Amino acid sequence: MNKKSLAILLRARMRPNNSTKLALSPLPNEVNLTQSSGSRAAQHAPENENKPQKEFEHVRESMRLAISMNKTEVLDTVLNDFSEGYFSLSYENRRRLLLVLAKEFDLNRTQVRELIKQYLGVSGEEAQLAGAEEEGGYPATFYRIERNLRHALKPMYESLFERLNMHPGGLKFLSSLRADILYILAEENIASLRALDSYLKEKLSTWLSPAALELHQITWDDPASLLEKIVAYEAVHPISNLIDLKRRLGVGRRCFGYLHPATPGEPLIFIEVALLKNVAQTIQEVLWNDPPIPECEATCALFYSISSTQPGLAGINLGKFLIKRVITLVKRDMPQISTFATLSPIPGYIQWLLSKLASQLKLAEVEDISQSSEDRSNSAFLENLLEPEEEKALMDLSNCRESVAGRNGTEVMLNLLTSRNHEWSNSDKLLSVLKAPLLRLCARYLLQEKKRGKALDSVANFHLQNGAMIERINWMADRSEKGLNQSAGIMVNYVYRLGHIEEYAQSYFSTGNIHASDDVSLSVEGTRSKNRLRMITKHAVKILFPLHQPQVYGTMHIEANVI
Amino acid sequence: MNKKSLAILLRARMRPNNSTKLALSPLPNEVNLTQSSGSRAAQHAPENENKPQKEFEHVRESMRLAISMNKTEVLDTVLNDFSEGYFSLSYENRRRLLLVLAKEFDLNRTQVRELIKQYLGVSGEEAQLAGAEEEGGYPATFYRIERNLRHALKPMYESLFERLNMHPGGLKFLSSLRADILYILAEENIASLRALDSYLKEKLSTWLSPAALELHQITWDDPASLLEKIVAYEAVHPISNLIDLKRRLGVGRRCFGYLHPATPGEPLIFIEVALLKNVAQTIQEVLWNDPPIPECEATCALFYSISSTQPGLAGINLGKFLIKRVITLVKRDMPQISTFATLSPIPGYIQWLLSKLASQLKLAEVEDISQSSEDRSNSAFLENLLEPEEEKALMDLSNCRESVAGRNGTEVMLNLLTSRNHEWSNSDKLLSVLKAPLLRLCARYLLQEKKRGKALDSVANFHLQNGAMIERINWMADRSEKGLNQSAGIMVNYVYRLGHIEEYAQSYFSTGNIHASDDVSLSVEGTRSKNRLRMITKHAVKILFPLHQPQVYGTMHIEANVI
Repeated sequence: MNKKSLAILLRARMRPNNSTKLALSPLPNEVNLTQSSGSRAAQHAPENENKPQKEFEHVRESMRLAISMNKTEVLDTVLNDFSEGYFSLSYENRRRLLLVLAKEFDLNRTQVRELIKQYLGVSGEEAQLAGAEEEGGYPATFYRIERNLRHALKPMYESLFERLNMHPGGLKFLSSLRADILYILAEENIASLRALDSYLKEKLSTWLSPAALELHQITWDDPASLLEKIVAYEAVHPISNLIDLKRRLGVGRRCFGYLHPATPGEPLIFIEVALLKNVAQTIQEVLWNDPPIPECEATCALFYSISSTQPGLAGINLGKFLIKRVITLVKRDMPQISTFATLSPIPGYIQWLLSKLASQLKLAEVEDISQSSEDRSNSAFLENLLEPEEEKALMDLSNCRESVAGRNGTEVMLNLLTSRNHEWSNSDKLLSVLKAPLLRLCARYLLQEKKRGKALDSVANFHLQNGAMIERINWMADRSEKGLNQSAGIMVNYVYRLGHIEEYAQSYFSTGNIHASDDVSLSVEGTRSKNRLRMITKHAVKILFPLHQPQVYGTMHIEANVI
Repeated sequence: MNKKSLAILLRARMRPNNSTKLALSPLPNEVNLTQSSGSRAAQHAPENENKPQKEFEHVRESMRLAISMNKTEVLDTVLNDFSEGYFSLSYENRRRLLLVLAKEFDLNRTQVRELIKQYLGVSGEEAQLAGAEEEGGYPATFYRIERNLRHALKPMYESLFERLNMHPGGLKFLSSLRADILYILAEENIASLRALDSYLKEKLSTWLSPAALELHQITWDDPASLLEKIVAYEAVHPISNLIDLKRRLGVGRRCFGYLHPATPGEPLIFIEVALLKNVAQTIQEVLWNDPPIPECEATCALFYSISSTQPGLAGINLGKFLIKRVITLVKRDMPQISTFATLSPIPGYIQWLLSKLASQLKLAEVEDISQSSEDRSNSAFLENLLEPEEEKALMDLSNCRESVAGRNGTEVMLNLLTSRNHEWSNSDKLLSVLKAPLLRLCARYLLQEKKRGKALDSVANFHLQNGAMIERINWMADRSEKGLNQSAGIMVNYVYRLGHIEEYAQSYFSTGNIHASDDVSLSVEGTRSKNRLRMITKHAVKILFPLHQPQVYGTMHIEANVI
């Protein structure tokens, strides 16, 4: 191959099309996969109208066999039969099959009750007092009944899971199975299936213990079949061509993956690292920084992408262990590296902000309508998202530009952010007006918006539970389509402070407390105290002037905002 | 290095001395290890008489912490503390600590009883009928209580095991811990400790699922640190020097090990294979066959050694999966290989035979003494182990050789087999007389001697449960000291018949049925029918002549043997 052809090849777009992309919901794709490789489905006569039903019954039967066969029987064939058959089923039949598994193969409750009776029989106080005095603790029968009860409380489907785990390719199959279960549970909440999911998740966590995972540094010397997976699964910053991939594996960069013997040549999760002089503020610096600095000058390891390849492993935090091991490894090999930081997306920010802006507009409207009625219940939820100077700047913009419409700052902002092709991001004027409120509200989103006591943003929750802190929020850090959609181009640096990782993780875990740098904390802190004051004032007005016109509250808002 | 020095190095004896050998019982060695590496024990003042007690209390405290700490707390330090501390304890203190673990950290039985109460409450018939009709099965609360009960029935020490498993080096530590437990249980049967062992074994089985193990072909290109392990752990045919090791990894030979990420560079189990034209009859052919045949001419893969490196993993059958995977691999790479056989030791044969011979002598003596009494209870256990022609040949030997003493064939045989330095094995005459009874009784030992329905011989039980059959018994197949001690130099070929492995495993598992070639079966079958006849005749004589002199039975024995 001559140089020119090589250059073209290296630059060729290599991101797979969306249609052939590896599935987040594996259902439709795997059906295709099985059918194209000549499955049982394809061998049946097409005129057979009962085919799907027969298929279903066949798979159900192999599932039953796989669960109930004796320990050393011809399991391999049955398990292959079951997993191949499963992939050939339609969505509806997979759902039926999983419900059969969840409901008909859970516990033998007659046996459980029988053992409970035995247990209560021997664990009476008499037996206890007599037995506990002995050197060996309780008598052996007691431990035996306890063990039997423990075993009886294991669902029958456990043996299917255990057997698949021992079977070549079985762990990967179980991960696909769980992806389907999660897909179904997202649609409908079925108690038995949720119990099955929680059981399977526990099992997968045990099997995927970090002790069973191998940390592998992925380099340009790795097989193409593995590198292909990196391209396919890179979920944060898509890899555009071979040059891009080569750069991410070259000088000044590192890529590490967790490999599991059950899924050879395919990391379960991988992380990309850039070795830099300073913590990068924009992803452009990382992805197009050419040439990279000499590695000996680097003082910062920046984690700029972490991607999990198995949707069926959702909720099993492999990333935490991966990050900890990579930190240890990099620190050992390059002692001059003193900062371990991320440059992370904020995937939920704009979605949260838009719904917040819209709901505030809605509340304000309702309040306008019901102004003469006694119903003031909405008022408590009404807040002004914008600072007065931000409100003013947005309204000024609206007054001098026809394209920017809105009755108030909130509406102007909503309209701007939902404009086609992110027009606002191409205008210096609009950018300068939006910058302050977008950054401030982003800090608030990251620090204060919670769900069950944990950060609402999934990436924030991930790093905080791993023991990181929020260091800096960066304006226009990712100008890609995706970056603008998710977070108006804002990105955040989380920092892993060596020596504080476990402490921060612990305080986040137990109290939900989020560690952040002073800069980030202060950018919301001011507003929070203002909000508190505003709420108090509002409340006071309500008490003092219960029959007052709602406009007064409006005025009071403005007054309160000035405080 | 010149050629001569290299030649000397390669021939140097490399089997480690017994004193530095890796421990079967890790207790004393690991104590040395820890002390020499400057443990806490060494830092204490030697005059402190309470040191062991303080040590013990310190380790118990770190154990308590490791179990009870919150999920994300600083576990690593505590786990290191615990495992280092454990190794520094004396045998007696390890025993105490393990009993504390087994008794004080098992179940919270108050909680179990509380949950049982809840469970019985909601699982009443009413709730069942109402719930089971629903699409989702029972209501969600029901599954939740069931899960809580399941969790409450898990001993508290589970979290110690789980946490150690996640901790670097923890799986290996757990394996050492279990080796200690097994050592203690062999001395004394303590119910709580046995319950702990059975729980730990279950856990280890899950973690060491074949899915988590990597099959690695061990070659001369592997790191010396790994090859050293092979030398240290080879348990069947010790490796004598580097040339021997190199030959076992060279042309016509294969060596495969199961590696686990938690014990890098150290296979948990490994198997050695020779590629041959025919199933070897003696180990000499395998170990000193020089030069090996060209691999393309091989039609047989002979497994001549399988060694497990972790005594703490006893009872977890990794070998079965290893053999199955190696068969698949070899078959794929060398389709001309059609026979998969072993050349195996019979470790329990001589021990069984000597005790059998001795007890028959004893029984015969007792019978002589009690000949006039009515107590005939021993007679039912009395059998003549030897065929008449064997008896005769042995007595002839005794009559013409002074050194060979004995009142009957049984005693002659016992004396010969227990003679110093296996003198019998150096005399052609003695060998020719002993060959027939030793081979015949060996076949009987392998095929008929059972313990709880399984073959008494541990190696036989291992291959039979994996699905092999007994193919051939080989005379003077291992003339080494160890071979003569274990099995009078006899070895056995087990054969794995492709397509019958699961079937044989299943029939052995469910009925204890042992598959054997006709040759082997017939060599005992004859005796068995003779024995049956003899028993019947004996019984008939007893009934017909109840007051007859016992000598008659003696005669009848001889007569019966002639049939």
